[in-house]
Amino acid sequence: MTTKNLLVELFVEELPPKALRKLGDAFAGVLADQLKAQGLTAADAVVTPFASPRRLAAHVTGVAAKAADKAVSQKLMPVSVGLDASGAPTPALLKRLAGLGADASAVAGLKRAMDGKAEALFFDSVQPGVELAEGLQKALHEAIAKLPIPKVMSYQLETDCELPGWSSVNFVRPAHGLVALHGADVVPVKALGLTAGNSTHGHRFEAAIDPVPLADADAYAATLARDGAVIASFAERKAEIARQLAAAAAEVGGGCQPIEDDALLDEVTALVERPNVLICEFEKQFLDVPQECLILTMKANQKYFPLLDAQGKLTNRFLVVSNIRPDDASAVIGGNERVVRPRLADAKFFFDQDRKKTLESRVPALSKVVYHNKLGTQGERMERVCAIAETIGLRLGGPELAARSLLAARLAKTDLVTDMVGEFPELQGIMGGYYARHDGLSDDIALAIEDHYKPRFAGDELPRTQTGVVVALADKLETLVGMFGIGNLPTGDKDPFALRRHALGVIRMLVEKDLPLALTELLSAAVPAFGDKISDATPALADFIYDRLAGGLREQGASAQEVDAVLALRPQRLADVAQRLQAVRAFAALPEAPALAAANKRIGNILKKSEGEGAAVNPALFVEPAEKDLYAAMQATVPAANAKFDAGDHTASLQALAALRTPVDAFFDGVMVNADDAALKANRLGLLKSLHEAMNRVADLSRLAA
Amino acid sequence: MTTKNLLVELFVEELPPKALRKLGDAFAGVLADQLKAQGLTAADAVVTPFASPRRLAAHVTGVAAKAADKAVSQKLMPVSVGLDASGAPTPALLKRLAGLGADASAVAGLKRAMDGKAEALFFDSVQPGVELAEGLQKALHEAIAKLPIPKVMSYQLETDCELPGWSSVNFVRPAHGLVALHGADVVPVKALGLTAGNSTHGHRFEAAIDPVPLADADAYAATLARDGAVIASFAERKAEIARQLAAAAAEVGGGCQPIEDDALLDEVTALVERPNVLICEFEKQFLDVPQECLILTMKANQKYFPLLDAQGKLTNRFLVVSNIRPDDASAVIGGNERVVRPRLADAKFFFDQDRKKTLESRVPALSKVVYHNKLGTQGERMERVCAIAETIGLRLGGPELAARSLLAARLAKTDLVTDMVGEFPELQGIMGGYYARHDGLSDDIALAIEDHYKPRFAGDELPRTQTGVVVALADKLETLVGMFGIGNLPTGDKDPFALRRHALGVIRMLVEKDLPLALTELLSAAVPAFGDKISDATPALADFIYDRLAGGLREQGASAQEVDAVLALRPQRLADVAQRLQAVRAFAALPEAPALAAANKRIGNILKKSEGEGAAVNPALFVEPAEKDLYAAMQATVPAANAKFDAGDHTASLQALAALRTPVDAFFDGVMVNADDAALKANRLGLLKSLHEAMNRVADLSRLAA
Repeated sequence: MTTKNLLVELFVEELPPKALRKLGDAFAGVLADQLKAQGLTAADAVVTPFASPRRLAAHVTGVAAKAADKAVSQKLMPVSVGLDASGAPTPALLKRLAGLGADASAVAGLKRAMDGKAEALFFDSVQPGVELAEGLQKALHEAIAKLPIPKVMSYQLETDCELPGWSSVNFVRPAHGLVALHGADVVPVKALGLTAGNSTHGHRFEAAIDPVPLADADAYAATLARDGAVIASFAERKAEIARQLAAAAAEVGGGCQPIEDDALLDEVTALVERPNVLICEFEKQFLDVPQECLILTMKANQKYFPLLDAQGKLTNRFLVVSNIRPDDASAVIGGNERVVRPRLADAKFFFDQDRKKTLESRVPALSKVVYHNKLGTQGERMERVCAIAETIGLRLGGPELAARSLLAARLAKTDLVTDMVGEFPELQGIMGGYYARHDGLSDDIALAIEDHYKPRFAGDELPRTQTGVVVALADKLETLVGMFGIGNLPTGDKDPFALRRHALGVIRMLVEKDLPLALTELLSAAVPAFGDKISDATPALADFIYDRLAGGLREQGASAQEVDAVLALRPQRLADVAQRLQAVRAFAALPEAPALAAANKRIGNILKKSEGEGAAVNPALFVEPAEKDLYAAMQATVPAANAKFDAGDHTASLQALAALRTPVDAFFDGVMVNADDAALKANRLGLLKSLHEAMNRVADLSRLAA
Repeated sequence: MTTKNLLVELFVEELPPKALRKLGDAFAGVLADQLKAQGLTAADAVVTPFASPRRLAAHVTGVAAKAADKAVSQKLMPVSVGLDASGAPTPALLKRLAGLGADASAVAGLKRAMDGKAEALFFDSVQPGVELAEGLQKALHEAIAKLPIPKVMSYQLETDCELPGWSSVNFVRPAHGLVALHGADVVPVKALGLTAGNSTHGHRFEAAIDPVPLADADAYAATLARDGAVIASFAERKAEIARQLAAAAAEVGGGCQPIEDDALLDEVTALVERPNVLICEFEKQFLDVPQECLILTMKANQKYFPLLDAQGKLTNRFLVVSNIRPDDASAVIGGNERVVRPRLADAKFFFDQDRKKTLESRVPALSKVVYHNKLGTQGERMERVCAIAETIGLRLGGPELAARSLLAARLAKTDLVTDMVGEFPELQGIMGGYYARHDGLSDDIALAIEDHYKPRFAGDELPRTQTGVVVALADKLETLVGMFGIGNLPTGDKDPFALRRHALGVIRMLVEKDLPLALTELLSAAVPAFGDKISDATPALADFIYDRLAGGLREQGASAQEVDAVLALRPQRLADVAQRLQAVRAFAALPEAPALAAANKRIGNILKKSEGEGAAVNPALFVEPAEKDLYAAMQATVPAANAKFDAGDHTASLQALAALRTPVDAFFDGVMVNADDAALKANRLGLLKSLHEAMNRVADLSRLAA
């Protein structure tokens, strides 16, 4: 069967730019999947998505005009049910065949094959392949229905109307054209009230002809580029913009580079069909304003690409990605420069106003900002972060660090009541750092204020200074302890206070900064700051944090069993968890491991049942050789294992314990723990208890048992 | 006339110890004054007061049995009123004489003397001297009535009753005996229902005889010592106790010294009649408790003298001043040791309990302590002190000092909610320091917490560290700015929040620590911390502080005029006020000073009237030689004076200006400022304005004008 390439395009009004790339990929992906599922394309068909502000399209290679017929083997029932003792069909079988359009004559042709433990009867038939028109109609319907549309709109159809009784359809934006070409042939499909044809429309202003006829499916991109002045491919358009941005920066010279922002590049790619990068500039006086403010204004509001110099400092040039290519671009350039000026002036005004007040003088205003009805104002929250930061600072570095952390914590939230952060919430922290320096505070304090929100997302950097780590920890702990303390836990997908993210932040700082802090103590230290506003929910919070830690460790490749063994002990210093995991993995690879893990589990059960009956071990009370041997082996092994553990070498510690395998096995073979003599029994339990303690310092080895 | 010594004793039940010395001095003092006023003693009479727990007495030398008769010359009226033109007595004179028991026959004997500007008539007569019994009765009545009695009690008289109609009297404690001896003679006086005799009572338990007869007035002290086992003199008893304390300390050895506490020494002197110092001890384990707590417990509750070793460290020995001298003192010693133990155990319990919580964890509790209904809780107050301390710290030392000051300010009040300070409020600050060190905070923070109440009284030391100064300043400014801001000003004697003391504390720190802070700015910096709780009353507060400063400077010997001249300028840096004063004094001593001060006053008035009419000086516009000369003299003088001022040499600056005296005088002699020509006038006013500015940089010299 010969195949041809297929091109489908839906031509619409301007699509939402932030979703465009996803819409294009989804449209092409679902369409191709549906064609493949119907046998209309081969497994190796190449799918090319297209997406521009005004069109979604897909090019699929090797599409058949009609799918191949398909042999189908259908299981009917077990032989014992379908045929009676004499081999004649039962009424049940005949009824079933009738349902498939066959009769008793088909019984002889049924195949037999093993299905599970029983032999079953199978009915073979041929299913005819679907026609492309029918298959594509279905695929197109699915592709449109499954678009990840942020917001649906309802609109009147243009033509009155091929779908009887329908006068409006729901789609993301009004659709105005449909192309469906199989090679050079139009495939007669319909969608959204439109009938497929072989011509489309080019650039709204700059197309050479309109409409733009397409010779065949493969001519789509080239024809649109030539006659329509449109780069239809999202990826190609994006690459072209990137190329032009780089070229424009090179033209400006001096090592300038446009800011790197892939999301912004995607967004402008979704806004233009014919990208044209232009160089603009603004008054140099605005460069007195922190460049984060200017960059944010230009990016967020104007979709401009500010230019940084070779040192990463903002210049007064920026790049605009225009959708048109006039011979004289000066009007476009001037227009953009005029538009950005009041924005920059606003930023400068906010910056000048804000610096007239110190951050300290803004502290009282925090008490007027509601944080949570049960946890009070931002002022009260600040107070608690202060208390926690002071306590952590004292533990991590002593009084000087405590004092610096307290000061930074006190001021960390004050930029929330500045004009600049009121306008650009994204600048919280950053502006606090600028204003702190302006108030005469040290870099240490300014950096801590700037960094205390970090890590803000997965993969974000951690605070750069010790003071910053302390305040960031305190800030996150305040949120976690407070929310858990009022029972405001995340459920399912709902985590409005980002407690999962905060827990991961705490974990990352403890682990990556190798902080000598015990988790339970750390959580408890945050509780008094709340007075009687909360109940102490630190056990639940600790579980939550260990759950997050476990998830992270499994993602990094640790097995659930290893993670379970280590975290079962609730290790207090999270920084050594990785090493414990490694030790457990090394131990699990030893030949002695399974036996020791099993023994350990058995010992745990025995001790649980004995409920603390064990006594201090008295060697004089040993009777059996096996218990004497075990005791001797422990004397030879445990001190060395403990020394390794105390030195932090968890792997060596566990490996030293492997020597106990034989005496432990021998003990269970040769010794009855539950002796009639109570003293004997207590002594044996005591021996097992000290063995159990020695074995489970790195991890709960019983969790490794099969 | 022969005189004898007098002894009066009032024997009573135990008198209030804290007032005893004052009662004794007042009793003897008033008694002797009254005797002298009635002419019963000579001007050089020696008065010896006695005071013991059970008696007030006075010994007065050279007391007459009867006062000498006294010639009295009484002014009647002017001669012109008393005698008519013919020299005959007027009816007015006769009426007046009749009033004095004389008649017209006395007119001839009237003396004439000048009285002011007129001649007056004087009538001479002889007033007979008072008898001792009568005079002493009156003196005794006064002496009893004028005792500075803290609390009067009313009690039934013992004998029924020599004062008809009286069955009870009011006195500090019930009186049981009265002695009044003139030499060996009893003076028949009465008081509080008692009739004077010549015998008294000795020590309640240890007198050799009872009653104790007194041979004569001079035998009083010796007889009481011998037969009554009582040291009657407060001063002698106090000296004896001091001697015994020193001897006991020497007996303990090792360089030990009892704590020095004159008020305590007075108090025990008022509690015993026969002092006997005993050495006791307590369990050494209590020495783990801060010695301030132990010393306070022993002193305040038990009136013991703790012993310090040669290094000033508390030992486990203490001295008890007993009132009795048994042969075997062991029961007394044991009793005192038993009594003190639970007190020390309490202190230890409080100390141990308190240390189980960090100061930081007590911060929320401050929000439950009401400070003032308009200014909120202690927690809110702490917040404000934090803000002010941070701001001052930043100005005085930068971010590190700001951070340390903030931390100290945050914790400075937390010891108020500890058990120890709850029991012993005198230990506030001191305990904060101990607990801060226990929490792992630095000495710097601990000292700042300890010292932030300083100076607590006139002459108290200032905080020892820079952080302490910052927090102490912030604490006092918070009180001052807050109380002024809600209009809670001290009136007359009422100053419940000790605003005067706080203002003096601020002044002392600014001056003695030579702090580079401008007063107005400092006060304003404290205002934002209050949010909208107060209105800004810093001008009134600044006046209040300058008033206190002025008072202090006058007390130190500066004249009101000098102080006025300097403070009229509202000098912002208080530390240089003393130097300005010195400069003003040196200037005032110059011969040129009066003329320059007067000229300065005159210039000030002219400028006030001209209301800023003056222009920048243009030398080309000068007409008169005198104005040219003044301008030339200023050119020669002012830059040098300004240079001296800027270098801080205020004296030299003012002295340089003295050279202007002659040209200034000549200017006013030869130049009409209010010239008809407006340009001329403006130029002259401009000259005077720059002269005025130059002359008044150190002080407002016009205030020195007569």
